[in-house]
Amino acid sequence: GTGTDNDLYINQAIVFIEDAIQYRSINHRVDSKSLWLYRWYYSRTCQWILSLTITIILALAFFEKPSSLTITSDVRYRPPAWNPPCGLTESIELLCFLVFMVDVSVKSYLIGWEEFWKNKWLVAYILTLVVSLIDWIVSLSFFCTEDVRIRRILRPFFLLQNSSMMKKTLKSINSTLPEMASVVLLLAVHLSLFTMFAMLLFARTKDGQQDKEWVGYFRNLPDSLTSLLVLLTTANNPDVMIPAYSKNRAYSIFFILFTVLGNLFLMNLLTAIIYNQFRGYLLKSVQSSLFRRRLGIRAAFEVLSSLREAPANAQQSYVSTEALLRVLRKVEMDSRCKQAITRSLKMCSCDQLSAAQFQKLFEELDKDAIKQHPPSPEYQSHFMQKMQFVFGHPYFGYLGNVVALANIVSICVVLVMDADKQPSERDDFFLGAINCFFILYYLLEMLLKILALGLKRYLSYPSNRFDGLLTVILLVLEIATFAVYGFPHPGWRPQFMGLLSLWDMVRLVNMFIVFRFLRIIPNMKFMALVVTTLLDLVKNLRAFAGILVVVFYAFAITGIMLFKGAVVPLGNIRHVAQFLPSARRGADYLSFGSIQIYRKKLHGCSSNCITWWCLLHLLSVNLICRWAKIYFVAWWLISSVIWVNLFVALLLENFIHKWDRRCHREPLSDIEYQRTVELMFRDVLEEPTEEELMEKLHQHPHLQLCR
Amino acid sequence: GTGTDNDLYINQAIVFIEDAIQYRSINHRVDSKSLWLYRWYYSRTCQWILSLTITIILALAFFEKPSSLTITSDVRYRPPAWNPPCGLTESIELLCFLVFMVDVSVKSYLIGWEEFWKNKWLVAYILTLVVSLIDWIVSLSFFCTEDVRIRRILRPFFLLQNSSMMKKTLKSINSTLPEMASVVLLLAVHLSLFTMFAMLLFARTKDGQQDKEWVGYFRNLPDSLTSLLVLLTTANNPDVMIPAYSKNRAYSIFFILFTVLGNLFLMNLLTAIIYNQFRGYLLKSVQSSLFRRRLGIRAAFEVLSSLREAPANAQQSYVSTEALLRVLRKVEMDSRCKQAITRSLKMCSCDQLSAAQFQKLFEELDKDAIKQHPPSPEYQSHFMQKMQFVFGHPYFGYLGNVVALANIVSICVVLVMDADKQPSERDDFFLGAINCFFILYYLLEMLLKILALGLKRYLSYPSNRFDGLLTVILLVLEIATFAVYGFPHPGWRPQFMGLLSLWDMVRLVNMFIVFRFLRIIPNMKFMALVVTTLLDLVKNLRAFAGILVVVFYAFAITGIMLFKGAVVPLGNIRHVAQFLPSARRGADYLSFGSIQIYRKKLHGCSSNCITWWCLLHLLSVNLICRWAKIYFVAWWLISSVIWVNLFVALLLENFIHKWDRRCHREPLSDIEYQRTVELMFRDVLEEPTEEELMEKLHQHPHLQLCR
Repeated sequence: GTGTDNDLYINQAIVFIEDAIQYRSINHRVDSKSLWLYRWYYSRTCQWILSLTITIILALAFFEKPSSLTITSDVRYRPPAWNPPCGLTESIELLCFLVFMVDVSVKSYLIGWEEFWKNKWLVAYILTLVVSLIDWIVSLSFFCTEDVRIRRILRPFFLLQNSSMMKKTLKSINSTLPEMASVVLLLAVHLSLFTMFAMLLFARTKDGQQDKEWVGYFRNLPDSLTSLLVLLTTANNPDVMIPAYSKNRAYSIFFILFTVLGNLFLMNLLTAIIYNQFRGYLLKSVQSSLFRRRLGIRAAFEVLSSLREAPANAQQSYVSTEALLRVLRKVEMDSRCKQAITRSLKMCSCDQLSAAQFQKLFEELDKDAIKQHPPSPEYQSHFMQKMQFVFGHPYFGYLGNVVALANIVSICVVLVMDADKQPSERDDFFLGAINCFFILYYLLEMLLKILALGLKRYLSYPSNRFDGLLTVILLVLEIATFAVYGFPHPGWRPQFMGLLSLWDMVRLVNMFIVFRFLRIIPNMKFMALVVTTLLDLVKNLRAFAGILVVVFYAFAITGIMLFKGAVVPLGNIRHVAQFLPSARRGADYLSFGSIQIYRKKLHGCSSNCITWWCLLHLLSVNLICRWAKIYFVAWWLISSVIWVNLFVALLLENFIHKWDRRCHREPLSDIEYQRTVELMFRDVLEEPTEEELMEKLHQHPHLQLCR
Repeated sequence: GTGTDNDLYINQAIVFIEDAIQYRSINHRVDSKSLWLYRWYYSRTCQWILSLTITIILALAFFEKPSSLTITSDVRYRPPAWNPPCGLTESIELLCFLVFMVDVSVKSYLIGWEEFWKNKWLVAYILTLVVSLIDWIVSLSFFCTEDVRIRRILRPFFLLQNSSMMKKTLKSINSTLPEMASVVLLLAVHLSLFTMFAMLLFARTKDGQQDKEWVGYFRNLPDSLTSLLVLLTTANNPDVMIPAYSKNRAYSIFFILFTVLGNLFLMNLLTAIIYNQFRGYLLKSVQSSLFRRRLGIRAAFEVLSSLREAPANAQQSYVSTEALLRVLRKVEMDSRCKQAITRSLKMCSCDQLSAAQFQKLFEELDKDAIKQHPPSPEYQSHFMQKMQFVFGHPYFGYLGNVVALANIVSICVVLVMDADKQPSERDDFFLGAINCFFILYYLLEMLLKILALGLKRYLSYPSNRFDGLLTVILLVLEIATFAVYGFPHPGWRPQFMGLLSLWDMVRLVNMFIVFRFLRIIPNMKFMALVVTTLLDLVKNLRAFAGILVVVFYAFAITGIMLFKGAVVPLGNIRHVAQFLPSARRGADYLSFGSIQIYRKKLHGCSSNCITWWCLLHLLSVNLICRWAKIYFVAWWLISSVIWVNLFVALLLENFIHKWDRRCHREPLSDIEYQRTVELMFRDVLEEPTEEELMEKLHQHPHLQLCR
């Protein structure tokens, strides 16, 4: 009937508008039941459950068998980590798989079966689930004693497929791969030619004294290749050339040539290529988001215009204001935007909306909320007004900065004076008294500012919130200290009492004071620019960070499987222990420091492996060592070379946009800076044309438009 | 009289056109004698003498007292270097100073006294000369025994002031300094805040076992600062965090945070800022060169139009063709251009030239010579024509590449097989026979190609020249080997004979073969692009390289003066010896490797200085150590951070331009690529307007134009 039809149209419009708000694709089923399922699937609860499931399945690696949940990382002192009984983590895993299965079926159903086969991500999702389940069954049937667990390596895929940003970024990276591969090929040619040169230059001589270089670094082909590869990372830079250099200064020419060509030219060329490929990346991604938004709004307009209530107009389609109001009431969106749209809809006073008017109404979505700070309180008394003027003035803030600086300097002086004192000689009186004074000043400053600005206005500035929070923490700590240890007096160094010793308390207070000093940032123009750039960058980097997590995770799990049992805790294996404790314990890979450790120890491997392990395991370990080398080189290439260059490219892109804008609109920037990427590019974005939108709409697999 | 006036005008026009060709400023005296002096000063001989003088005065550092002209760099085995007698280098220096004095007087005279005082470079030049001369006199009056020689540090100034490109680049760098300083300030804040945090975190504890981190890296303020500064260079990366990390894994958060903020964000921000500032640098410099050229041509037009022979025309000025021909005959310029201009002048058949026509004639200067390869010989015989087709075909070149690759692979195989053999076990027969065969093939290939292309056409391709030269060298080496050692046969390993042993000869041949393999580069499209980018870059980098030489030189000389006698050759001072031999010997600084050595040993200084030297010299050496630290930090900042970033910026700029052009004009790029920077930017350059040119001409300090 007409009523159900109308209801359907209204529901479609609601979903399309929500799609537009969230920049989602509108290519999903649009019948009543599917729409209900769609709204349920994209409801906050459902998405939250999905995210939680992904987090849980990724976090399982920390608790599973080679767990690394110990305080120390030193294999010698470390107590055996807690190993969960067989079946515990596995059952949690099964629960996660069940959630994923529901997820994939809903998703596949919603986009329709024809579309499903075109969507490679969904097919891969199902394959991953199937493989994981089979692996899970195998694992349980071996009572968790099997070595190879493929499903662990596959886990990060669940994170990947759930984020459209990450999928988009991956596509971008993928399109850069051919150029990157060319440079990597060039690097390989460079490396192999220089390796041959090196082997010819630093050959074994008859005089054993003369060939230190050969013994140390160029004994055979793998050794030479490793030496030069590590030289490319600059990790063994002066050491590798010292024996040759002390024999003849001219040998340094070889190493200089290699480093200049490899490090200075080819490596930076990689940066240039990646930057060149990514120059338009942000703009393109924002442009496609804009297209999705306009498309969603347009689709809503089209379905609403097919409502029977609307008068049939052959020339142009219209939407009645009433229908739109009905839709708006049910749409989930930011309340500020909803109010603004409703208000302008009522102000317009027309009964029908054309497509252009309809689109224009929703432009409110693109606008940034102009933040209005609440007004200061108005005092009657003349004295209070003067107080308000004095303590509301920026100079009072600057005075606060100067005092914070003085506090930092005093702490620094005490630290320098106490540097070489024994803990028993230390007297905390001076620092205690000074900090007490400064914290009182901070409290006073906060109270006076609240007095001048009013609590609401005070809290509306992020810098004040930061300031106030830290002041309160400092006050609490100070009161706790006094409550336990009494007021500062000469010789104020009581023994350990309660939770923390006095010394620890004082240190904690000092750390918070140093941290509080960051409040100066917004007052320094250039610093503020840099910090806002960095914050923007962090936002744009979420997708990259996600991909990085995926790569880290996969490498960590592969590392666990490859190096399982490779380290045998023998007498003095300190060196090996430093090298591989974390390769054995997977979760450590997730720490950034490890990248560097592996980069540094890459060369260590070739020498230590051979001396230590090859004595132990002879052939089998030699094989491991070779695998380890390949593993670490891959790790270095991906994490250090490619990822860092991607990061630099994004930073350049962001910073140059920001910088240009700062130069162009100097006067505006003081008022309120626009935060989102969409707004950063607003001037250069192209509005999609009517034809593009309609063409896309007619290609919709499930929506049949009347005209 | 009119005749002398006319001669003067002709001479002025000649000089202005030469200025235009060389992109020189036209703001110099224009009377007859000055013009003669000007042409003499800018003649090739004079400029060559000046360059030679600068080279000599810079090269003196290698021979002066702490000279480093020894083969080994190891202080233990090194024989005492040759020290020139007092007065030898000093008298050469005096000669150089005399040349510079002539140079500065001619330069000052030519630009005129009023202009002289405005030109800071000239004033600085004179000051430098005066200071150098005074220092020279002091030096001689002490019989060369004085320690501080200021004039050595001033020497690179002579290089700097002689190159207009370097002065321009320096100005550009100078304008980037405020932004760079901001980031460096930010880095300093970052470093100091984290140092305070570190000192609070890794404080001394009562339990001596627990504070390894404190003992090793954070004992006092300078130590902590150094540790974190070195962490910023990633030189001590895993080591500095290992003690804390093995105590508690959570401590790694501190180091990760520091590295991510400092290394990933702030350091790359520096790259972004420098790139942003240098984005327009190349374009701007090319634009100003174009302006100088147009201005010179226009000035020549104006003076020629004042010739009495020309008919007075109130509206517009004209130049007679005849006068221009007279000027052209005397101008020193590329003969190809001169011919082209004369030809088009004769073809034009008009008697008088307007300013626009005049300017247009000289646009020939901007054009690139389109290289025409000489034609192949035309053979009559059908067989020879077939031969020509076969061996002139690109596939024959590809076959040559494949053979070269096969040669490389065979050498590689032999190297791998021989890697662990004793020199006495080695048999050179296999390699000798193979190489003999391959070199014969190379010779054959060269001859056949010459047959097909003709000698002239063969030599007109750079890749063929490279190929042919190496083939000839290989042939000569091979013949020499056979002459001395006979033909290869099993057990071909005779003892040392003549200049080089057989083994060395074979190695030399192999190196040339590896080097010859580079001929594949032009055949791989992406490689060719990269290599041409690099070649362009090298051209644009000359100014940067000059500034780098200036900085290296100044640092080296400062290093010699600072660390003179700081190293006392005691028993086992291997560590110190590795660290400072080259700081003592200045010329070593000029090698790139040293940068890295100092970067690495920066931290070594803080620990080794204190353990070794402070035992020896107590207070005085401690002072030296602190100075050394400041010196090395300055060195790191300038050479590693700023210069490398400048390099990256230039590379990005060059590469992105090149890449864009490649994409836009794919079909053209095959024929002939344009080499000069001017041509690279031709599409985006703006022609200066008539008004700009005339305004500039009227500001000329010495030229009075009639109208």
